[in-house]
Amino acid sequence: MSQIYLTEVALRDGSHVVAHQFSSEQVRYVTKQLSEAGVPYIEVTHGDGLGGSSLQYGFSKEHDIALIRAAAEVAGDSKITVLLIPGIGTIHHLKEAYEAGARVVRVATHVTEADVSKQHIETAKALGMEAFGFLMMSHSASPEKVLEQALLMESYGADAVYVTDSAGAMLPSDVQNRIRLLRAHLNIEIGFHAHNNLSLAVANTLVAIQEGATRIDGSICCLGAGAGNTQTEVLVAVLNRMGIETGIDLYQILDLADYVRANILPHPQDITTGSLVMGYAGVYSSFLRHAHIAAEKVGVDARDILVELGKLNVVGGQEDTIIEVAQKIAQQKVGSA
Amino acid sequence: MSQIYLTEVALRDGSHVVAHQFSSEQVRYVTKQLSEAGVPYIEVTHGDGLGGSSLQYGFSKEHDIALIRAAAEVAGDSKITVLLIPGIGTIHHLKEAYEAGARVVRVATHVTEADVSKQHIETAKALGMEAFGFLMMSHSASPEKVLEQALLMESYGADAVYVTDSAGAMLPSDVQNRIRLLRAHLNIEIGFHAHNNLSLAVANTLVAIQEGATRIDGSICCLGAGAGNTQTEVLVAVLNRMGIETGIDLYQILDLADYVRANILPHPQDITTGSLVMGYAGVYSSFLRHAHIAAEKVGVDARDILVELGKLNVVGGQEDTIIEVAQKIAQQKVGSA
Repeated sequence: MSQIYLTEVALRDGSHVVAHQFSSEQVRYVTKQLSEAGVPYIEVTHGDGLGGSSLQYGFSKEHDIALIRAAAEVAGDSKITVLLIPGIGTIHHLKEAYEAGARVVRVATHVTEADVSKQHIETAKALGMEAFGFLMMSHSASPEKVLEQALLMESYGADAVYVTDSAGAMLPSDVQNRIRLLRAHLNIEIGFHAHNNLSLAVANTLVAIQEGATRIDGSICCLGAGAGNTQTEVLVAVLNRMGIETGIDLYQILDLADYVRANILPHPQDITTGSLVMGYAGVYSSFLRHAHIAAEKVGVDARDILVELGKLNVVGGQEDTIIEVAQKIAQQKVGSA
Repeated sequence: MSQIYLTEVALRDGSHVVAHQFSSEQVRYVTKQLSEAGVPYIEVTHGDGLGGSSLQYGFSKEHDIALIRAAAEVAGDSKITVLLIPGIGTIHHLKEAYEAGARVVRVATHVTEADVSKQHIETAKALGMEAFGFLMMSHSASPEKVLEQALLMESYGADAVYVTDSAGAMLPSDVQNRIRLLRAHLNIEIGFHAHNNLSLAVANTLVAIQEGATRIDGSICCLGAGAGNTQTEVLVAVLNRMGIETGIDLYQILDLADYVRANILPHPQDITTGSLVMGYAGVYSSFLRHAHIAAEKVGVDARDILVELGKLNVVGGQEDTIIEVAQKIAQQKVGSA
């Protein structure tokens, strides 16, 4: 079995959980502990990536670049990684992040829109960075479509492509189908990023590794959007038990988890019915509030709206669709009554 | 695929989480909702089974028998199930439970001690109850040993035998090996009871079903010892998505989960480093406090003690072993220094 490389995302995906209020002190402390524990990649960015700090996505307490610099100062052998969603983040942001010490970028696009990552991947490679593609909402496209888009990212020079289960909606078989197909056709490494909305994040990560993924994501104390990500300390314990090498010290990660729980975690990341329905329907958590508003207005069950939105493969920005879907469900109920 | 029968254990395993303080009103409300949602089996007993209310295991707020009677009054088509650990519970308790309305008993023994279940299984069958065997700490015995013990329970007249992952220590391959072997050699149904200490409870339950288990356990909001059990509402959602029939209405279970979270759950059941180490080491949560006391006294890491206890396959009641193990670890450290 190949060495498995973990990217710790608590300081990026976990940013959602703390309303983007990480301080330099927190980032410095957590990064130093992660580095000493042997975590090879540490992602530090606003939850929505570089440039995410805004009225629309929520303002950060401190500028991304300040946090990246704080992390880079204490990162030791670990590589500071940033997330960049083209349209939110720009080439300019990427260069700033590089100057602040970031050495890896994950260029994230919707699973059907890999073509918008070309310029960013090429710029990162020209800067000498590692550049990974990150195909969000990969559950919503067929394995063949995911492969087509991954091949595009490979052709732009990506060093790896991640299958990203943004909504925590994948069953083990969904992970298996996608990673297996990519492994058969790509020449670069494959990664997997999970959310725990269906309580399958650790198990799906094991399936991804079994199918040939060598890059996985975890977050300490499960800090991340929705029901959180794959809980790093649990994943490291399980991989230890299985004899799969990560280079990460379990006890040091456990100590850090105790620190994060005591000092950062605003509420335990267990699976609420809200996050469960997100994973069940396969939609972003940003839809939840809108669905509840529409449900109340039209007098239907918000869960029916979310499930229907999942079937329609709605993406971020299509929140206007919600009221239309609610009205359609209400009409069907009248029709069948 | 066969129909899958779920036993809801929040009113038994979840009893640990509320320090055995369930009231008749709570039990009645939750049972009624579970029954209306279509849950076929509802376990209602002290966390340590019939007769568990004691100084050693914690006194119940209300007598088991009163809670069983309250549940039976509103159970509708659902069957009230009790847990009986021979040595804690007796034949007398079993008859009382039957008179109060229990129609199913799970006779639980350590995985290597199935022989103590004979009299209890036979009595239950004579009363006209369904009787299931429940092999606790099944991770600590080889698949062949689990089979040998399951065959004993079958020979006593058990209608099913459960592989019970009491410490939440099993990897998917551990579940697969055990259920597969039992399925090949038993003529009765096979069940699986999980704990979520390694975040694998849902995934392990899917593996058990895939290997032929038809009886599974869940607990609403994950209410259960250690990191809790398989979260019922999540499991039902996942099985729905997979097209596996449970007869349970998802939305009604989600509504009940919201009620339990608001009114019963004392703290969210996420995975702490304490419960994670239990699952990693494969020991009962009752060892945790003793290990920390011994660690402090002798000056070693409590986690090393727990891992060593797991290797020794200690069982409940062997808490005296802990200080010896701690001293041995301390001596080895001196020896290697």
